[in-house]
Amino acid sequence: MKFICSQNDFNTNLSLVSRAVPSRPTHPVLGNVLVIADKDSQHISLIAFDLSLGIQTSFPAEVKEDGKIALPAKLLGDIVSRLPDGEITITVKPDEDDEEERSLTTIASVSGTFEIKGMKAAEFPELPSINSGESLKLPINALTEGLKGALFAASPDETKQILTGVHLTKNTDSLEFAATDGHRLAVVETPLDPAETSDTTFNVTIPARALRELEKILTMNHNADFICLKVDESQVVFQIGEQKLTSRKLEGAYPAYGQLIPKSYSRNVTLERKRLISSLELVAILADQKNNLVKFTLDEDKGQLALSVESPDVGSAKQFMGAEINGDGGEIAFNVKYLMDGLKALNSSSVSMQLNANTEPVIFSPLGGLKMTYLVMPVQIRK
Amino acid sequence: MKFICSQNDFNTNLSLVSRAVPSRPTHPVLGNVLVIADKDSQHISLIAFDLSLGIQTSFPAEVKEDGKIALPAKLLGDIVSRLPDGEITITVKPDEDDEEERSLTTIASVSGTFEIKGMKAAEFPELPSINSGESLKLPINALTEGLKGALFAASPDETKQILTGVHLTKNTDSLEFAATDGHRLAVVETPLDPAETSDTTFNVTIPARALRELEKILTMNHNADFICLKVDESQVVFQIGEQKLTSRKLEGAYPAYGQLIPKSYSRNVTLERKRLISSLELVAILADQKNNLVKFTLDEDKGQLALSVESPDVGSAKQFMGAEINGDGGEIAFNVKYLMDGLKALNSSSVSMQLNANTEPVIFSPLGGLKMTYLVMPVQIRK
Repeated sequence: MKFICSQNDFNTNLSLVSRAVPSRPTHPVLGNVLVIADKDSQHISLIAFDLSLGIQTSFPAEVKEDGKIALPAKLLGDIVSRLPDGEITITVKPDEDDEEERSLTTIASVSGTFEIKGMKAAEFPELPSINSGESLKLPINALTEGLKGALFAASPDETKQILTGVHLTKNTDSLEFAATDGHRLAVVETPLDPAETSDTTFNVTIPARALRELEKILTMNHNADFICLKVDESQVVFQIGEQKLTSRKLEGAYPAYGQLIPKSYSRNVTLERKRLISSLELVAILADQKNNLVKFTLDEDKGQLALSVESPDVGSAKQFMGAEINGDGGEIAFNVKYLMDGLKALNSSSVSMQLNANTEPVIFSPLGGLKMTYLVMPVQIRK
Repeated sequence: MKFICSQNDFNTNLSLVSRAVPSRPTHPVLGNVLVIADKDSQHISLIAFDLSLGIQTSFPAEVKEDGKIALPAKLLGDIVSRLPDGEITITVKPDEDDEEERSLTTIASVSGTFEIKGMKAAEFPELPSINSGESLKLPINALTEGLKGALFAASPDETKQILTGVHLTKNTDSLEFAATDGHRLAVVETPLDPAETSDTTFNVTIPARALRELEKILTMNHNADFICLKVDESQVVFQIGEQKLTSRKLEGAYPAYGQLIPKSYSRNVTLERKRLISSLELVAILADQKNNLVKFTLDEDKGQLALSVESPDVGSAKQFMGAEINGDGGEIAFNVKYLMDGLKALNSSSVSMQLNANTEPVIFSPLGGLKMTYLVMPVQIRK
């Protein structure tokens, strides 16, 4: 194998696929990036795969000789990222002295050379591919908005299985994203132009980790309007330009979250979002590490919201802000972390907070812009 | 106690003194900042002290009522740094319900209030002060250059006692800074204008930790040209504008480092500093974590320096660069980390490397600019 490429191309594409390299590989070959040089297309493909998430990317190069090799991802990345701008030449020759028959790879730049040992490409597992079934065109704008509004609410706790994913529902004229960790729920609905997408409907739960990488790939492809999605029984494959992301689906039934969202509300409060966030950040300094509790006191006569936190032995904090209150005032308490996560994702200058009784779910939604519902359960205040 | 001040003033000064608050205080009161409000001078003083390093600073405020209180440094910093721009009012009243008689302090801004509990100022230890002896005026430029060129070479290992400091020698017309961790030595000599400084000579070893804080204080005082230094048997005190830094001296005799520096050299090599650093960074990727060895091969005929690293089982790296070599070529090896630390501090476009035999100390020094000597011991190459 031999090819010449630009340091910049190699580095950018390597960083991208490296996200699918596990930090503690279950098998040594998974700590590698598979490098494929194709003389016919004059392209290099890079592939990384942790058996759940796979990323493939491709870029043009001057390929002198076909070949495939698995190279240690971290070491390769460290070298290529530090090489000076300009051409680099990669040459692979079998190392006859090495008992494990690892091939010696030379990386040459204008200032010098590196020699590192690679593993046989044959040991590298193949990326899943989906050849049957329909391929769906999804608008990148809708996907980007949906991920931004839902991803943060998925559970980071691997034992929570299906809750570590985002649930995607494709209807004929909309794409819905939902994520919950059991304490809060984020739902985003983005419109689809029926003329531009097929009328297939489906739903699938995709690991949040894979979708976070998809978000990065989407921001790299400034020219594309659509991404292609294929789904089969166990896998999803996203394809955009030269990049491909594969992920296993999460098994099991996703919670019927629609039932959790109240149909009507007895109270509605309009609040300035940034002011609310900065006030919460202030009182959160004193929020007890254990329960993270913040109390909202709604004063409908004054049109005022008071946020307060009491921390025994440390002190207390109180912040006030204007609020447009329709319905009764009173006190209600939340976990301040859950509130802030959601408010940061809402992305409008004003937000609406809709409530019923003080023990029932509370909904935050943006006024204007994205169609998003953020549900948080209040915390009971002990008297 | 009651005063009104700007959030910005309070925050800047608090960040500065907070550097002297120990992360794990040996006594609870040391986790506090002492706040002193003085009605006569209409100034607030802040003091932090970990019994070795002390920092005091002062800023103007509208003081309504005199007073002193020790407030928890981290909590106070978290609050004040997040408060919005504008006026804040601090009021202290004794808390009669608190058995430990901790005073309740109210921090009020336009958007709300915080209440936190403080400790009695009387419990806070006094900063050492030096009233006798001469006070020396040191030019800030000289001090800044000297610290920049020497501080990095002090030992971070607390058990190495005197080597955790920088040794300052004041001669009549120069100020010399030296630091060594036993593996390398950095010496900087900065000129003093005899007309502007006293002819007192002295030497003192000051903990690197205190000098790192002094560096920060120096960058804050853009208007001052001089800093005042007082030294007694056990302490040093630096004073500049409203800021004061006190530190214990390090006890014991500093190594007679002058004897380590060779008087003459049989070989001299001139190298481009930035190129050398980037080449070292490249080969360092493959340097063994344990010995961090890089081999220099000097080819006097080609006028070339080759940097090479071999890492068994991983691979090898070789980088080449031009070099002006006077004297014999050959091979010599170094710890790559020590080399890079020194080269980063040298601060000139070309550096001179002066050598004798391959087992004797090697000196790096800048060509032009700072008068600095960086000594590294070569590592023996096993054949």
